[in-house]
Amino acid sequence: MADKSKILIIGGTGYIGKHVVEESAKSGHPTFALVRESSVSDPVKGKLIENFESLGVTILFGDLYNHDSLLDAVKKVDIVISTVGHMQIPDQVNIIAAIKEAGNVQRFLPSEFGNDVDHLHSVEPLTSAFARKIKLRRTIEAEGIPYTYVCCNYFAGFFLPTLCQFGVQAPPRDKVSILGDGNAKAVFNEENDIATFTIKAINDPETLNKVVYIRPPLNTNSMNELVTLWENLIGQTLEKTYVPEEELLKQIEASPPPFNLLLALNHSVFIKGDHANFDIDPAVGFEATEIYPDVKYTTVEEYLKRFV
Amino acid sequence: MADKSKILIIGGTGYIGKHVVEESAKSGHPTFALVRESSVSDPVKGKLIENFESLGVTILFGDLYNHDSLLDAVKKVDIVISTVGHMQIPDQVNIIAAIKEAGNVQRFLPSEFGNDVDHLHSVEPLTSAFARKIKLRRTIEAEGIPYTYVCCNYFAGFFLPTLCQFGVQAPPRDKVSILGDGNAKAVFNEENDIATFTIKAINDPETLNKVVYIRPPLNTNSMNELVTLWENLIGQTLEKTYVPEEELLKQIEASPPPFNLLLALNHSVFIKGDHANFDIDPAVGFEATEIYPDVKYTTVEEYLKRFV
Repeated sequence: MADKSKILIIGGTGYIGKHVVEESAKSGHPTFALVRESSVSDPVKGKLIENFESLGVTILFGDLYNHDSLLDAVKKVDIVISTVGHMQIPDQVNIIAAIKEAGNVQRFLPSEFGNDVDHLHSVEPLTSAFARKIKLRRTIEAEGIPYTYVCCNYFAGFFLPTLCQFGVQAPPRDKVSILGDGNAKAVFNEENDIATFTIKAINDPETLNKVVYIRPPLNTNSMNELVTLWENLIGQTLEKTYVPEEELLKQIEASPPPFNLLLALNHSVFIKGDHANFDIDPAVGFEATEIYPDVKYTTVEEYLKRFV
Repeated sequence: MADKSKILIIGGTGYIGKHVVEESAKSGHPTFALVRESSVSDPVKGKLIENFESLGVTILFGDLYNHDSLLDAVKKVDIVISTVGHMQIPDQVNIIAAIKEAGNVQRFLPSEFGNDVDHLHSVEPLTSAFARKIKLRRTIEAEGIPYTYVCCNYFAGFFLPTLCQFGVQAPPRDKVSILGDGNAKAVFNEENDIATFTIKAINDPETLNKVVYIRPPLNTNSMNELVTLWENLIGQTLEKTYVPEEELLKQIEASPPPFNLLLALNHSVFIKGDHANFDIDPAVGFEATEIYPDVKYTTVEEYLKRFV
């Protein structure tokens, strides 16, 4: 493992973080996870930490708000990946400060793992939420920290098991609700695959100071295409209700957080098409399956087949 | 209106904030709302701002991150109510700084409007989220700023229309999922009523440096009681599935944000009973319907009747 870069994950017990920690360890990188000491006794996070240890991950105690712990952790590694939650996006300035002070870090991946925030047509409260990610990008760039931004668009595990219907337990077999005209293309990637592409990208000189867009053609589907795919798989036709933008905006206004944020995200993705309504500029970034064609990723159809 | 205290609401275009702005204006208080200039052109927030203006609310442009705008706004009023969203909880230190500098504010209500965060039995990610509210409370107290904390527990509009089932569109008529043994008591209050009690509390010398718990006996129900109430209203019996704590913890671990946070909140409320598993200490606070018995609030039964 001498030639493998050392990786620190901050936020490793989070939803996408745990996949990144696992993938990093399994691919032979000396892997460090910064976790709070209190997480060990938490019923949810404690089990994840045990699993990390069984994979050979070095657990470091500390957090985003303890500069010494952050600095010590950053000094041990070559690459820092942040997968902190949406509430901690601005507080990643503390990681930037530690990286600047340490001086040894070759690449920083801030917590992105969603839309490309520099390509947005959003309404509130999403505009403000994404403004925090945009501000962090500009800070990283101004500080001259080497970076890669991973834009994986939608998590498959979040949207596909319900065919993008909130709160149902399985893909619908009778009726389905479609936002707008159903033609805007959205992108769905399985969490394991996101981690695989992320770990591929971190050592790649091509992706230095670039955006990695995970946008596999087979996983780039409009809601209409997704519903047709599902209908073909189950051999049934669903009753479709189309929700106009005006109606969705009313729902956003009437919904408490965090549902208003989720609905505003769906507005950006399914009404405005923000996952795929722009061509990838090679000066800015690359599409992951194009630069890593050897990765065997799960397609949307394969994913949906699990629910037939 | 000369004898009515002047009220500033920060976060007034938010879910609970808009009710507080309306109630403040309707009850005759000179009312100011600090909003971002960009919100005027936002399809969702722009309409709310128009409505505020029609109620005679003075719109001030600015935000939490612009100290001058905050200071100017704070200087105009007697009472500051923050209803900012959960992502901005820590950034309320900026309001505290402005209040300290201005020196004229008689009472500050930080953005609470949920559980009493000093009475918690929570798992992650809720523990960390509520730690931010706890830290803010301690900062307010250490700075000697006069405060009132409003703990309204659950928003009725969030939970009752679905009988606490995520994602369904109406209260269930066939089957219902119940967390734990269904006996922990939760508290549900209609958003208008929360605003009414809040505006009542702000000028009350009794509630200075105290917690106002909105916990009306008729709105304090276990899931089992809630289901029985609903069954009686519709004259039907539902099929009940009980979800054990262990299963809920697994769901929390597997769910992406913000669903893991919502599930962890349900764990605190429906498994641990954190809304009502403690007696209100008169040295700490008061129950709202006891100190304001004249307020005609909506009961859970009245609320549910709307869906029969």
